[in-house]
Amino acid sequence: MADRRPASFPKAVFEARWAALHEKMQAAELDAILCSNLANLRYLTGHAPIIGLAPTRPWYAVLPADQAPMVIVPELGLADMAREGTFGAIHTWPSPRPNGDEGVAEVAGILRSLRRRFGRIGAELGRETRIGTTWSDMTAIGNECGFEIVDASDAIQAIRATKDVGEVAKIAAAARAAQNMFDQLPALVVNAQTERDLHREANVHMLRAGADAAPYLAIGSGPGGYGSLTRGPTDRKLTTGDVIGLDTGTVVDGYWSDYNRNAAIGDPGEAARRACTAAQTALDTALATIRPGLCACDLWRAMADILPASGSRIGRLGHGVGLDYTEPPSIHPDDETVLRDGMVLAIEPSLSFQRADGTEAVMVCEELIHLRDDGPVLLSRRAGPDLPSIGQA
Amino acid sequence: MADRRPASFPKAVFEARWAALHEKMQAAELDAILCSNLANLRYLTGHAPIIGLAPTRPWYAVLPADQAPMVIVPELGLADMAREGTFGAIHTWPSPRPNGDEGVAEVAGILRSLRRRFGRIGAELGRETRIGTTWSDMTAIGNECGFEIVDASDAIQAIRATKDVGEVAKIAAAARAAQNMFDQLPALVVNAQTERDLHREANVHMLRAGADAAPYLAIGSGPGGYGSLTRGPTDRKLTTGDVIGLDTGTVVDGYWSDYNRNAAIGDPGEAARRACTAAQTALDTALATIRPGLCACDLWRAMADILPASGSRIGRLGHGVGLDYTEPPSIHPDDETVLRDGMVLAIEPSLSFQRADGTEAVMVCEELIHLRDDGPVLLSRRAGPDLPSIGQA
Repeated sequence: MADRRPASFPKAVFEARWAALHEKMQAAELDAILCSNLANLRYLTGHAPIIGLAPTRPWYAVLPADQAPMVIVPELGLADMAREGTFGAIHTWPSPRPNGDEGVAEVAGILRSLRRRFGRIGAELGRETRIGTTWSDMTAIGNECGFEIVDASDAIQAIRATKDVGEVAKIAAAARAAQNMFDQLPALVVNAQTERDLHREANVHMLRAGADAAPYLAIGSGPGGYGSLTRGPTDRKLTTGDVIGLDTGTVVDGYWSDYNRNAAIGDPGEAARRACTAAQTALDTALATIRPGLCACDLWRAMADILPASGSRIGRLGHGVGLDYTEPPSIHPDDETVLRDGMVLAIEPSLSFQRADGTEAVMVCEELIHLRDDGPVLLSRRAGPDLPSIGQA
Repeated sequence: MADRRPASFPKAVFEARWAALHEKMQAAELDAILCSNLANLRYLTGHAPIIGLAPTRPWYAVLPADQAPMVIVPELGLADMAREGTFGAIHTWPSPRPNGDEGVAEVAGILRSLRRRFGRIGAELGRETRIGTTWSDMTAIGNECGFEIVDASDAIQAIRATKDVGEVAKIAAAARAAQNMFDQLPALVVNAQTERDLHREANVHMLRAGADAAPYLAIGSGPGGYGSLTRGPTDRKLTTGDVIGLDTGTVVDGYWSDYNRNAAIGDPGEAARRACTAAQTALDTALATIRPGLCACDLWRAMADILPASGSRIGRLGHGVGLDYTEPPSIHPDDETVLRDGMVLAIEPSLSFQRADGTEAVMVCEELIHLRDDGPVLLSRRAGPDLPSIGQA
């Protein structure tokens, strides 16, 4: 069932990333970039330890100006980093140290040894970035490293935002695993008693269809509409008249796909059908409008202009996708990022609407695209204009 | 196949948590605790948004002295927090704000409005804790809130470390999903060509056996031993003479289970068998030794004294488990935490050993226990003393 797995990246891919970052660093007057965020670690080295999801041990990479990145990692990680990471040098410390310094001295020492030209080091301090270490340790590294620590989130995000063909192949593989599941959605719904059943079997299907993992799988269901599409499953029984939404976040080799599908069991009523048509029409408009050179805010405007005025609380109509489930830019009125060839974007118009009983529901329709010079290439398979209806449960 | 799902917690469970934290806050002279870590958000309110894994939007909870927690969350989260969270008040802001303040003003404003007795607020600044917001925003909140921000990680971790019966029921359910898979390990191995096949089907099995998710599933394999047990699967073919390790991290309702199993295909050789026996003997000793009142370091010593001197690079012989995959304490020579009734601990002696070809391998044997006044209660089913052998692949 699974497609052939995309190939690992050759070292040249990493060298190109380092070169792009080196150029940004020169412009921003940075002597190095310090990372502890695991997505950035993977971007720089090709390897992010899965045990990094345990908060005991931080993992660091340093990209000096004009050199390959070095990593400073717990001893535990030495074997895997040596085999899988594509980088300059591996430093380790015996971790954990329950009463001692958890790598701060090692990281600060390596930073102090770097050639000083600008006296500044960029770190993951800003917007849409999480540090992979504690606030105290990040602060201590800044105090002890002998450089001024400044935010480099924007620089890293700007480089990560445009994907090369190898990256897109991994995102596309993750998207195919979701598509394969969505193709079976009628059967999955018919065989599921509850949201939890459907959620589990959808997850299983995506794993068997080639996803390494499906860390995000939101489900919404309700008579005539769902109230939100940002939560996990409940034991709610699925029944005739329900609208069901499944929003997937599947991963292949660290790269995410993000898009959703909706379906009704039997007849969900006119309000849900209209809401779906409104969102799908906005998606059609977005796909016809999007091109490199357009601002994210203008893409937002193109959709917002034709969506019902009530809007929804989701707050934006799409975002970047890559090594994080959501990345800049936001398709939002305040985001003036110029869209570029190579970006991968989830476009997700949504709206609130009133169900027959007067309660509020939300409708989200989402597709995943790779933006090229000649327009968008769909990584999801475009949903039809109408809310699909599945035979009664 | 799945067991009956453990019940949700009644509000009294959360009230007991708040009361325990209020007592700690009084002792530590804190007027409130500020959280953005999703495990802590779940601990305080019963709800952690799954969309929190996307780094765009932070989610905050504030526990004032002598009050129920309030949450400050993106508008997107209102419906789910209102339905699932057990707390005082919900504040929202329209998120994201691509060029603006992502909730800092809202959080700082709420903190400023709190009653000031000590002038200090505790936050998740320290050891084994990740903030769920950016370093810059955490720092800005500290600068703008009018209180001194101090580390409260230890206080939160101390309360979280002892689990009530409802929490243990969830951890036990997560452990049973893993056990159910391990019971099928011979069949899973025989049907798998590669590490990746085995990893995927083990994951599927655990989902169907009642795990909400299996976010951590490390696999190691190699002739006569595996080199590490902290990485995901490769396309390596499984073959006669291999030792296979699977280390599980399964989750039910936010609560983790963590333990591993090893198996050989056919005969892995004397070195692996001896390493397994050494680790299992250390585990027997730990299970016979552990009791409330013992120091974590003494439990480490009891195992270290009988493990071969070479040790391993893993750095500790166990740790706490709960809403995080790994939690304090560490079973480590420097951790003087006194073990208490109610703690859930993964005990995992490991050692390095030489394979027949002279290369280094590691052996890890892990069980999960609930420590009670009269000794440990196994949440995993104790593995046998010998490395189990599966018929040839």
